[in-house]
Amino acid sequence: MVDLTHTLSPEFPFLPVEGKTFPFRSSPIATIKGDGVYANRWELTEHVGTHLDAPCHFAEGAMAIEAIPLETLFVPLAVVSIAERVATNPDTTLGAGDLMRWEKDHGEIPARAAVFLHTGWDVRTKEPGAFVNMDGAKTMRFPGFSDKAIEFLLGRRSISGIGIDTLSIDPGRDKEYAVHKELFRAGKWAVECVANLSRVPATGAFVFVAPVKVAGASGAPARIVAVW
Amino acid sequence: MVDLTHTLSPEFPFLPVEGKTFPFRSSPIATIKGDGVYANRWELTEHVGTHLDAPCHFAEGAMAIEAIPLETLFVPLAVVSIAERVATNPDTTLGAGDLMRWEKDHGEIPARAAVFLHTGWDVRTKEPGAFVNMDGAKTMRFPGFSDKAIEFLLGRRSISGIGIDTLSIDPGRDKEYAVHKELFRAGKWAVECVANLSRVPATGAFVFVAPVKVAGASGAPARIVAVW
Ligand SMILES: [Zn+2]
Ligand SMILES: [Zn+2]
Repeated sequence: MVDLTHTLSPEFPFLPVEGKTFPFRSSPIATIKGDGVYANRWELTEHVGTHLDAPCHFAEGAMAIEAIPLETLFVPLAVVSIAERVATNPDTTLGAGDLMRWEKDHGEIPARAAVFLHTGWDVRTKEPGAFVNMDGAKTMRFPGFSDKAIEFLLGRRSISGIGIDTLSIDPGRDKEYAVHKELFRAGKWAVECVANLSRVPATGAFVFVAPVKVAGASGAPARIVAVW
Repeated sequence: MVDLTHTLSPEFPFLPVEGKTFPFRSSPIATIKGDGVYANRWELTEHVGTHLDAPCHFAEGAMAIEAIPLETLFVPLAVVSIAERVATNPDTTLGAGDLMRWEKDHGEIPARAAVFLHTGWDVRTKEPGAFVNMDGAKTMRFPGFSDKAIEFLLGRRSISGIGIDTLSIDPGRDKEYAVHKELFRAGKWAVECVANLSRVPATGAFVFVAPVKVAGASGAPARIVAVW
């Protein structure tokens, strides 16, 4: 059993969108010393920390968090790694060819699977600047899925959702959110900021994706655990 | 597979503590119409909706959410019902005798189990006043665990945590939080506002308790699922 969830805190990096996103915030409402009980209040956006994106994040009228069927959240896990390529090129993406090579080694991606992309980026969360990785032109530079990989997964396989260890399933340089849009039009979910994928086997594990269940939410922090 | 999680919304009832607690709040930061993407920001306390209490909620220096071992969150589930008694007496509690009677029927509570108390109270969440159930003297009236039940579970069995379908593991009338304190001193967790316990077998299921993983949190909204 491996926890694929980062610990969320005010220091945890987030996707910067001027005037819209902000770091996770927590402040005490009661302390053991003063009140005999300890508790906090939080302010956050739906897409902070290890979290799930619901189809309605980009697709008008599509499923929100609470409508995602439980049967698609506890599923076989396929982990595909491009970490070796990422080490020398942060702009690289997962291609359809990577998926076909993975299938040669591990067999066809199981029905209902979650396909998680291991880029090795999760170790950068300890250094927020390195995780967001903004270049001099204010463009983020980190790896992601390609359109072609998504077309393969949606058209030729029968998946429940996808995941990645970076801030976004689209590569950092992208401004069109093509991967998000295509995936969400098909009614599938995505998880972002996944941790510890290097500790999970490429095939044979199950993943339990457990988002907070909030009415009408476009996304939600999730606890994600692999078991095998 | 049954979802034991209520859908959280601004209408969901919460434990009223003057100047400290408030309903779950959500407001849009981006809309598909205006921004091409839909997302919200939330304000909440750690103990709203279906949620987990960490030992540090009442016990100084005890475990916060992120330190709770994963191995205690995916465990055998024992469901004990006192719903029949609750129907005529909202102040009734789970006694040690109820646990012994349960064991006569279903065998000893398994090692590492979560023991969830079904009182039937979850159906009242649709009517917030009835869930909190404040009487004329501003005392809440709902069922809970007794000290004796907790002593039995901590002293004679080896549990991971407990759960209930009301707002608190202590009965509503209680002002001392004796059950919380004894449980948390022993380093066990509790979940509150659990849903759908009438749909889970008394024994034979596993429960996956998945709280949001926030650094230093005294509690956190959780997704809770039973599988069997
Ligand atoms: Zn997101
Ligand atoms: Zn609580």
